[in-house]
Amino acid sequence: MSVSIETQTQSVDGPDWETMPDGATARVHIGAVSLDNGDRIDDVTLAFQRWGALSASRDNVILTLHALTGDSHVTGPADDEHPTAGWWDGLIGPGCAIDTDEWCVISANVLGGCRGSTGPSSPAPDGRPWGSRFPQITVLDQVRAERILMDRLEIAGVGAVVGGSMGGARALEWAIEYPEMVRSALVLAVGARATADQIGTQTTQIAAITADPAWQGGDYHDTGQAPTAGLGVARRIAHLTYRGEVELDRRFGDDPQADEQPLTGGRYAVDSYLQHQATKLTQRFDAGSYVVLSNVLNHHDVGRNRGTIESVLRACRVPVIVGGIASDRLYPLRLQVELAEQLGNCVGGLQVLHSDNGHDGFLTEFDAISDLLKQTVEIARG
Amino acid sequence: MSVSIETQTQSVDGPDWETMPDGATARVHIGAVSLDNGDRIDDVTLAFQRWGALSASRDNVILTLHALTGDSHVTGPADDEHPTAGWWDGLIGPGCAIDTDEWCVISANVLGGCRGSTGPSSPAPDGRPWGSRFPQITVLDQVRAERILMDRLEIAGVGAVVGGSMGGARALEWAIEYPEMVRSALVLAVGARATADQIGTQTTQIAAITADPAWQGGDYHDTGQAPTAGLGVARRIAHLTYRGEVELDRRFGDDPQADEQPLTGGRYAVDSYLQHQATKLTQRFDAGSYVVLSNVLNHHDVGRNRGTIESVLRACRVPVIVGGIASDRLYPLRLQVELAEQLGNCVGGLQVLHSDNGHDGFLTEFDAISDLLKQTVEIARG
Repeated sequence: MSVSIETQTQSVDGPDWETMPDGATARVHIGAVSLDNGDRIDDVTLAFQRWGALSASRDNVILTLHALTGDSHVTGPADDEHPTAGWWDGLIGPGCAIDTDEWCVISANVLGGCRGSTGPSSPAPDGRPWGSRFPQITVLDQVRAERILMDRLEIAGVGAVVGGSMGGARALEWAIEYPEMVRSALVLAVGARATADQIGTQTTQIAAITADPAWQGGDYHDTGQAPTAGLGVARRIAHLTYRGEVELDRRFGDDPQADEQPLTGGRYAVDSYLQHQATKLTQRFDAGSYVVLSNVLNHHDVGRNRGTIESVLRACRVPVIVGGIASDRLYPLRLQVELAEQLGNCVGGLQVLHSDNGHDGFLTEFDAISDLLKQTVEIARG
Repeated sequence: MSVSIETQTQSVDGPDWETMPDGATARVHIGAVSLDNGDRIDDVTLAFQRWGALSASRDNVILTLHALTGDSHVTGPADDEHPTAGWWDGLIGPGCAIDTDEWCVISANVLGGCRGSTGPSSPAPDGRPWGSRFPQITVLDQVRAERILMDRLEIAGVGAVVGGSMGGARALEWAIEYPEMVRSALVLAVGARATADQIGTQTTQIAAITADPAWQGGDYHDTGQAPTAGLGVARRIAHLTYRGEVELDRRFGDDPQADEQPLTGGRYAVDSYLQHQATKLTQRFDAGSYVVLSNVLNHHDVGRNRGTIESVLRACRVPVIVGGIASDRLYPLRLQVELAEQLGNCVGGLQVLHSDNGHDGFLTEFDAISDLLKQTVEIARG
């Protein structure tokens, strides 16, 4: 099969993605993706990075799945193309938890994203940005696109699918939809469906963005304006749900920011911190993708078109490692308790990460995540 | 002492507030209030309601203190002046937990509010709305204003100060600042100072309001525009912090709203619910007051200008009933544990309300609140 692949600087044929340097980015035109809502997106592109060599039997792939505002840059320092260090930096590489001397790690930017894969800021078939015309997509639609990517790369099966948060939701959908392709899965800090609280906070974040006049109904990409104020508010809302209540209080309490005076209009330290988080995101992330992907999280429900959640989970025979974080306010532990109890082949029961960092523990708890990854690849070895 | 008092329809002298019908509203010009930040507001007006007769010895007052978007309408049905039923409806009245055959209940709209008391939507000395010129005020400043109101009404001491959330913060400040005037206090669903998480969510709500172009730097009151979109987003953020995570999921899960289709742009039920909460608030509440009072909550710290929080609490000898709600995400139980352990005269230790409703349990748990109020007035009887 001949596959058209572009690296950052060139367009090459299929085999080249296997020999490009570790961590380089390739873009694959995967063709059409059919969607849960009956629509179809033609000419989808997915951008991905690869670390470690594909084995001769092409069966040593670990598919590593990023969260809402993450991207394919799982490991390695910040560089020109990637404004931050990898989100699991140090966990993937030679001698790491996922040892790239043994495994070929592939990480793709999601469908709907803004780091090289097709999303609302990408050109639609008419050449103009998709904007408001980008359809409602689901976690399963993203997984369908990733499945097509694997087909294009001639990967018939993967050793593991691993991820947390929205990445965990995709790992779960992979195990349920394509069990014959998946030897093991790590499902971290997520649930079987969106909760009302999650939908509540995500729709509120969307409301903050769409209330920004620069949003222009979602069709702002070629206007020279962007709803950065609304996206900043959305990020502030989200960031609080990502962190722990006690942790924030220990770090910031009601301290003022530097020598500012809150009683005469100065800021508190935590306000300044959230402003900083907001500014950082608005500089690197597209508001349209944020809305699309927040809706992806809203639509997450493994029961859709399949049956009850319990029956769907019980029928899944893929060995799954389930992890949760005790202080997670966004995906509380009760959701991972449900997964661990109901999945047909949960290995070792629920594994609780004791972290003060809340939901972000799925990014910050290096040793615990390292352990979960090692357990997962041990299963993948068979 | 002659006091100028206006009821809804007339201006009367001091004694009349004592004989106006139960639940009627009076407005008192209390004069100047000096503020924690060194400023002063001249010509402050406080609006209040009264239920039950003042005793001959003028010592049977229960001062009932409302929360952020509440007002003086503690009990009774909605009417022309009050768009909703009282926030503790049924807990105050003849034969109720606070029996108005015995007690004279007074409830004032807070300084900074928008229901008859001086706030950013009120005329400043130059006749134009205060708007952005309204100063940063604190819980203690609000209590100072209420203390002056008591002086104007010739009330030398009260049987109890009672309230939850921002009302609980005022009850606590009353007990600490004016212990000689307070025989007992009920401090419900609050802490000794704002936490980083509270300041984080409140400054994010303020950011949502001030990002609305209709905010106009806070000086919108006489422009014919108001930042309703921003205030609506703020209310959505706040409302999620007021409710319980499990409760919301039981009520709404990921159900669509009626026959809407989320996968083609329809709403989820919880989104519709939050929109409804937002619309209700924007119809009854001023965004400027919302910003001022959110900052009041940010500034809450009983240690300010006094010493360590622990030393301040331990020095307070007023008998205090402390209540907290197990599912409260905004004022988690650890804050009331601290109050109960450190207050110099906490009666009966921390009293935990087992409610699914989160922070809003301080409004919804009728039987438990009734019990706490009865305990408080029992102490007030001496």
